[in-house]
Amino acid sequence: MKIYRLAEIKQHLDIPSVMAGMEEGFVALCKKETVTPPVGLLHFDDPKGDCHIKYGYIKSGNYYVVKIASGFYDNPRKGLPTGNGMMILFDKATGTPVCILLDEGYLTDVRTGLAGSIAARYLAPSKVDCIGIVGTGAQAFFQLKYLTLVTSCRKVLVWGRNHEKALALKRHENLGEFQIEVAPNIETIASKCNLIVTTTNTETPLLFHHHIRPGTHITAIGADDVGKQEIHSALFAHADRIVVDSKNQAMLFGDTFYALKSGLIEKDAIRELGEVIEDKKLRRQNDEQITIADLTGVAVSDLQIAVKIYENMTLGKP
Amino acid sequence: MKIYRLAEIKQHLDIPSVMAGMEEGFVALCKKETVTPPVGLLHFDDPKGDCHIKYGYIKSGNYYVVKIASGFYDNPRKGLPTGNGMMILFDKATGTPVCILLDEGYLTDVRTGLAGSIAARYLAPSKVDCIGIVGTGAQAFFQLKYLTLVTSCRKVLVWGRNHEKALALKRHENLGEFQIEVAPNIETIASKCNLIVTTTNTETPLLFHHHIRPGTHITAIGADDVGKQEIHSALFAHADRIVVDSKNQAMLFGDTFYALKSGLIEKDAIRELGEVIEDKKLRRQNDEQITIADLTGVAVSDLQIAVKIYENMTLGKP
Repeated sequence: MKIYRLAEIKQHLDIPSVMAGMEEGFVALCKKETVTPPVGLLHFDDPKGDCHIKYGYIKSGNYYVVKIASGFYDNPRKGLPTGNGMMILFDKATGTPVCILLDEGYLTDVRTGLAGSIAARYLAPSKVDCIGIVGTGAQAFFQLKYLTLVTSCRKVLVWGRNHEKALALKRHENLGEFQIEVAPNIETIASKCNLIVTTTNTETPLLFHHHIRPGTHITAIGADDVGKQEIHSALFAHADRIVVDSKNQAMLFGDTFYALKSGLIEKDAIRELGEVIEDKKLRRQNDEQITIADLTGVAVSDLQIAVKIYENMTLGKP
Repeated sequence: MKIYRLAEIKQHLDIPSVMAGMEEGFVALCKKETVTPPVGLLHFDDPKGDCHIKYGYIKSGNYYVVKIASGFYDNPRKGLPTGNGMMILFDKATGTPVCILLDEGYLTDVRTGLAGSIAARYLAPSKVDCIGIVGTGAQAFFQLKYLTLVTSCRKVLVWGRNHEKALALKRHENLGEFQIEVAPNIETIASKCNLIVTTTNTETPLLFHHHIRPGTHITAIGADDVGKQEIHSALFAHADRIVVDSKNQAMLFGDTFYALKSGLIEKDAIRELGEVIEDKKLRRQNDEQITIADLTGVAVSDLQIAVKIYENMTLGKP
């Protein structure tokens, strides 16, 4: 059993192969070729935090994964990153641990960023005028970083409650290829951007249907736990396509959960990302449609990124 | 973050402190001072196996644990042990991993054995004539080993489907203090033993009420997953005390789950082990009573054993 620390993991992260593996994972998930039980959730009150345990396997695969990822929101004040965690890969035939990826939550950030870029690949309008980023945390960075894989647009508007962090994102040394401006409010983002990614931890919706212009695609990745909601339910009723990574999870939490609960949309209106990858008819059909991808994060993505890194490590590939 | 391998873990295992910690854990659990969500379960068909993920914390404590334990039943044919796994301890204030105990499932065996001895401490008859062990796997050994802490009886009858493994247990070099005989059938165990521990993986009940004589205590530790059942439900109806480690888990699986489902017992008849530790009136009251402890294994035991080992390691004890 091998144990890999973050520096080594970063060296062996081959984004194109991970992205391809994740697309295969989303397709396997929608075809019910995976076993991914409900997410294990731990909540902490003082200090406020949560820990998500995602686990599962692809039936035809060789491994199962257990991924542990935490968010403790007071950590930055202590000089620590908010997120932490690890991924553990096991032999599916024997239960033997194969490797521990001590990624400190990094791979969860990467696969969440890549899931956003996969959603944009299939749902964003053909011409992106400006990318809108709502929120200024780690995912604001990762979503932007991996959107370069699927759009040529480099104009960005960012908005968040913390103006300092918005300015830090604008000046981020690894986002130099973008022209990033800080928006005064979310309405400005909605009026100027037709590819919007929401990445906040909010418990009260920020984005409303009257904000959004026709032709916009929204990827919502912040509401990954009970109680969190970024997009007002009425916006779902105005969407031409509603896509989630996992329908089962969308029944339990996330923006889609609230939209369903409100009665403004029906379960049948929701498609899984794997279906959209497989079937062109389920993608955006024109540049007037409003599309939403609500991603709560799925175990099969953790599995696929862990497997790709392990295979790259053991095959000696980058 | 420290990583400890099995040999080092075994060196730092201080059984009395672990046992005391586990009793505190059972008490905290019954007083609802713990957060221990439902067990995460993965099942595998080919080859047959399962993986249990237990996780949680004591509200007043410093750590949370994630414990991963697997059982793959074809492993012995491949020269591998059935069980495997690890425990990971995290700082409850920040989510930072504190240590990984690569125990290969050993600590799950130890805490399961100790839970059995704790149950016997409070529920076994005052004079144990003979210990009956049903099953011949790892728990047959661990249950016996730790019963030495709570009873002076060294007479043992063992029965299992696999006669060779029953003989191996009889000759086990680390059980030399016992006089172990192999019983021809489970009825012999029931007729001669008044402290019986069932440790099998069976899906059809083995122990029936007409087998059992008055004054017997039964600890059932095998049925730790959906579908498994060792004790026929009617035996519960004949018991004077029904004790479980976790009522919440007993609603979901295990022998008590089936007894409740059958309608032969009521939920109110069930007590948690922590209550029995706290309240003498809930223990065995005389040597004619039949008592059952149905243990499905709780995250708080994993937490407590991991914390005790980590503290021993870092304090340089024992």
